[in-house]
Amino acid sequence: MRTFFNVQDIGDLDAALKEALEVKENRFGCQQLGKNKTLLMIFFNNSLRTRLSTQKAAMNLGMNVIVLDVNAGAWKLETERGIIMDGDKSEHLLEAIPVMGCYCDIIAVRSFAGLRDRDYDYAETIVNQFVKYSGRPVVAMETATVHPLQAFADLITIHEKWTELQSNPAAKCTHDRPKVVMTWAPHCRALPQAVPNSFAQWMNAADVDFVIAQPEGYELDPMFTKGAKIEYDQHKALEDADFVYAKNWSCPGVKSPADYGKILSKDMSWTIDEEHMSWTNNGYFMHCLPVRRGLIVTDEVIESDRSLVIPEAANREISAEVVLKRVLEGLEG
Amino acid sequence: MRTFFNVQDIGDLDAALKEALEVKENRFGCQQLGKNKTLLMIFFNNSLRTRLSTQKAAMNLGMNVIVLDVNAGAWKLETERGIIMDGDKSEHLLEAIPVMGCYCDIIAVRSFAGLRDRDYDYAETIVNQFVKYSGRPVVAMETATVHPLQAFADLITIHEKWTELQSNPAAKCTHDRPKVVMTWAPHCRALPQAVPNSFAQWMNAADVDFVIAQPEGYELDPMFTKGAKIEYDQHKALEDADFVYAKNWSCPGVKSPADYGKILSKDMSWTIDEEHMSWTNNGYFMHCLPVRRGLIVTDEVIESDRSLVIPEAANREISAEVVLKRVLEGLEG
Amino acid sequence: MRTFFNVQDIGDLDAALKEALEVKENRFGCQQLGKNKTLLMIFFNNSLRTRLSTQKAAMNLGMNVIVLDVNAGAWKLETERGIIMDGDKSEHLLEAIPVMGCYCDIIAVRSFAGLRDRDYDYAETIVNQFVKYSGRPVVAMETATVHPLQAFADLITIHEKWTELQSNPAAKCTHDRPKVVMTWAPHCRALPQAVPNSFAQWMNAADVDFVIAQPEGYELDPMFTKGAKIEYDQHKALEDADFVYAKNWSCPGVKSPADYGKILSKDMSWTIDEEHMSWTNNGYFMHCLPVRRGLIVTDEVIESDRSLVIPEAANREISAEVVLKRVLEGLEG
Repeated sequence: MRTFFNVQDIGDLDAALKEALEVKENRFGCQQLGKNKTLLMIFFNNSLRTRLSTQKAAMNLGMNVIVLDVNAGAWKLETERGIIMDGDKSEHLLEAIPVMGCYCDIIAVRSFAGLRDRDYDYAETIVNQFVKYSGRPVVAMETATVHPLQAFADLITIHEKWTELQSNPAAKCTHDRPKVVMTWAPHCRALPQAVPNSFAQWMNAADVDFVIAQPEGYELDPMFTKGAKIEYDQHKALEDADFVYAKNWSCPGVKSPADYGKILSKDMSWTIDEEHMSWTNNGYFMHCLPVRRGLIVTDEVIESDRSLVIPEAANREISAEVVLKRVLEGLEG
Repeated sequence: MRTFFNVQDIGDLDAALKEALEVKENRFGCQQLGKNKTLLMIFFNNSLRTRLSTQKAAMNLGMNVIVLDVNAGAWKLETERGIIMDGDKSEHLLEAIPVMGCYCDIIAVRSFAGLRDRDYDYAETIVNQFVKYSGRPVVAMETATVHPLQAFADLITIHEKWTELQSNPAAKCTHDRPKVVMTWAPHCRALPQAVPNSFAQWMNAADVDFVIAQPEGYELDPMFTKGAKIEYDQHKALEDADFVYAKNWSCPGVKSPADYGKILSKDMSWTIDEEHMSWTNNGYFMHCLPVRRGLIVTDEVIESDRSLVIPEAANREISAEVVLKRVLEGLEG
Repeated sequence: MRTFFNVQDIGDLDAALKEALEVKENRFGCQQLGKNKTLLMIFFNNSLRTRLSTQKAAMNLGMNVIVLDVNAGAWKLETERGIIMDGDKSEHLLEAIPVMGCYCDIIAVRSFAGLRDRDYDYAETIVNQFVKYSGRPVVAMETATVHPLQAFADLITIHEKWTELQSNPAAKCTHDRPKVVMTWAPHCRALPQAVPNSFAQWMNAADVDFVIAQPEGYELDPMFTKGAKIEYDQHKALEDADFVYAKNWSCPGVKSPADYGKILSKDMSWTIDEEHMSWTNNGYFMHCLPVRRGLIVTDEVIESDRSLVIPEAANREISAEVVLKRVLEGLEG
């Protein structure tokens, strides 16, 4: 595996899930693979879960880790040619990125959407420069449009819970495959679409019945959602759901590019509370974290025994380890 | 050992000192214990000695280390329930702390007293949240009220010097056990009481004759000092001292809660100079560092051959290694 | 080796180059040497290449690495004696530096010239304090006046290319030894002289024909350049050059101390473009990076197949590994 951005990069999902459960049982079993291999983690944006879980995963594999925090303001790379670089950009990406590739075997990059220029964001301008010029495999630690380590961890969590339910006669599992509803929920700030994009992409590829619930205007890019049912009536969407994946995102600008990155609704009736959960099939609550209580979800729901937010976070170590393991195996070849 | 905050956590002090000397002789002897174990070091406040020595100790033990710098201002955790989180706090501690616990085996936390709210500080609100919610053993790297890694390192230093003196006929060791005087000294800024609190607590538990010298109003909390002699006459206190432990602290607010965190005195006659040291039993000078020369101590005293400030700092690696070793052994069980 | 500042510290250059090529072939061959040894990297200034390459080199050698970022403004060390430290300096270097030495086996320091006080800069005040008080070997990661890890990497790069040329009959190598021209080039900011100082020092010691091309007033300190030819006519200097090492530096203040650190020229005719390169012996272009395109060099030249900027950067890992290996061998003794 040379890049990890999309669900296709991981190949067969059943095989990936099987490997994830093996890795979870034996986290330190592949240290020969990572020995003397270096992961360079580059953060253009802050990180808690992604930073800790990816670093932990790399160390599990016996890798060396170098963390580089790039303050978004401080390190401006020139990207144009034919420029006299006498301004605030002290280095050209055509030098900076190959140099970073010199000192590592794998590069992981976090670079969020700016939400100002849809074309720039959706072209994945920053991370694609790393793919093109670093000479190294590149792993997304949330880019402008995708967050596949999160989506993979979410899939592992759903798989674990569903397997558990199916083997439990008392759970009365009435569906052949789980109904997973990703529902938009209100937020006070404009957030990128990376998490819902990836979750939609992974759920479409997984063996689940996937529905997206959202207000009008929040349609995600079809390149991620194609095949998914979209419901504008949240109540109807949540009926009989086995898993409720709440998330806010700002306007993806699909129908109205001028609205890209804007907050179109703060409708608090979309906040997931106990009444919302009562519409489901005794469903589980999920969120990628960090979550704003009172906006996305109530205290009662997130603290209930149906909340999977901590197991999801814990599985970030596992998704990262499987991905790094696959990339390391690719290096061997 | 599941937590390390107070002297009681380390158990028998003679055994702990014996183990410290063994660790000092053989720092890399327990790497099997730390293999594939991860220490997460969380800093809400700056650190030089604590950061370097604790990281070094963990690496001596073969552990992986992840360092997380939390700018006190940047990462505000919501602690209340029933709140609509639409302000500057983007995550609730009930999610953030369990998540951090997912990616490590031991958590070490530095979080200083704010000195504005005595009840909040002395309740150890921040670190107790880590104890309660992280699911991991928690080690104090200086909290609002204690700094036990420092106090343990200081005890090791006193023990080493006293053993050396007792085995040296020329030293004319006239005391059965060392007289240790912790003396307040002036400073230009309001400082927390964590270091003097812990030093008092550890000296009370150790086989020493312990005296606290301080101006009126600087009485430390009796939960740390109980049993210790308090002298308001510094000259009298220093007479015949074997070890002089200088430290500034702001008003602990025991007698007058309204004065908590205030500077009550800048009396420069309390600065430790050669005359002060002449009152002692050819005593050693100690300080936890960083120290402000000219306020706490003169150049002559801190640079003299009776100054133990560098050996104290060097023993921080040892105290941290013993503590982490004990915690690791607890994980095994 | 106890310090690494000057070319003399590395001893015989042929032996050092031979060792560099061996290390490059077998980067992980000396891990027993670095086992349980700790490198403390202290940055008073930002770093990309130096940080990544030195950390990588230390990890190649099996060392533990602790990185300490010292914001130049935040951590002010008192250096005077007899001072009452009641200002913004919270620690004296006489405590801070020995303490840092306690927790490591080797110290690497980056501290740039301030360009305000020539005597202070050229006395290497900061790093010499580490040499004098840390008790540890000290490696320069660019100081006020030298950047030897860069110069050594440049020498390795020249040696590799020249060896390749000599073994290639088609290359028509007409010189017995390479002509290396270091040429000043314009820049929008005042830069230190560390890189050109070290490059001059190393080239003077190497088996090359070395020429410095520069405008009047940019004469480097003779302690670094002695023996080197200086040309004020860039065209004449570049004629028949095998390697063109472009670099900007501010006025070294040798002839006119009052001009120290000033920009004396922004003459864009010194920018290296294809015409400049046409004057050479099909020469290679070199630069230490980061480089400002349009000022130092044109896009065409730096992107051409005669550009060595990425191989130079890659050899930073090798120069650092040889240096750390030598220092580790010195510890054994």
